[in-house]
Amino acid sequence: MNDNDEINTLRRFGAQVRSIRLLRGISQEELAHRCMLDRSYVGGVERGERNLGLLNILAICTALEIKPSELFEGWRDVE
Amino acid sequence: MNDNDEINTLRRFGAQVRSIRLLRGISQEELAHRCMLDRSYVGGVERGERNLGLLNILAICTALEIKPSELFEGWRDVE
Repeated sequence: MNDNDEINTLRRFGAQVRSIRLLRGISQEELAHRCMLDRSYVGGVERGERNLGLLNILAICTALEIKPSELFEGWRDVE
Repeated sequence: MNDNDEINTLRRFGAQVRSIRLLRGISQEELAHRCMLDRSYVGGVERGERNLGLLNILAICTALEIKPSELFEGWRDVE
């Protein structure tokens, strides 16, 4: 994965988190609170600026009430 | 997620990577090579010692020829 792919991958993931969060009608503040993460960190995730770890991915899934397999639905191996 | 949950979660992920790798009949060396990761890093992932980032998760999916949604099949939000 070259740098460009990496940026696009993180942005895609962030956009997906954001769209599900909005679907759930919760703020970044609320999502951060549920995940016990900092609001600015969640903002960075949504902007595609964070290569977040597995544990934070799963914490976000729990907070958004979505299974990890659903969050990655439609993702081929690597974009 | 408490510390114990985190350890179990990483171990579960590592065991899953390992079982798929063995199914594919490839060595840790080969998996590491395909991911452009260090062999010892892959060993650490399989032992559940790594909270690996999204990009490495996706690189491992590509190397194992599995979709991310398949890798996380059966995972509820958080273990």
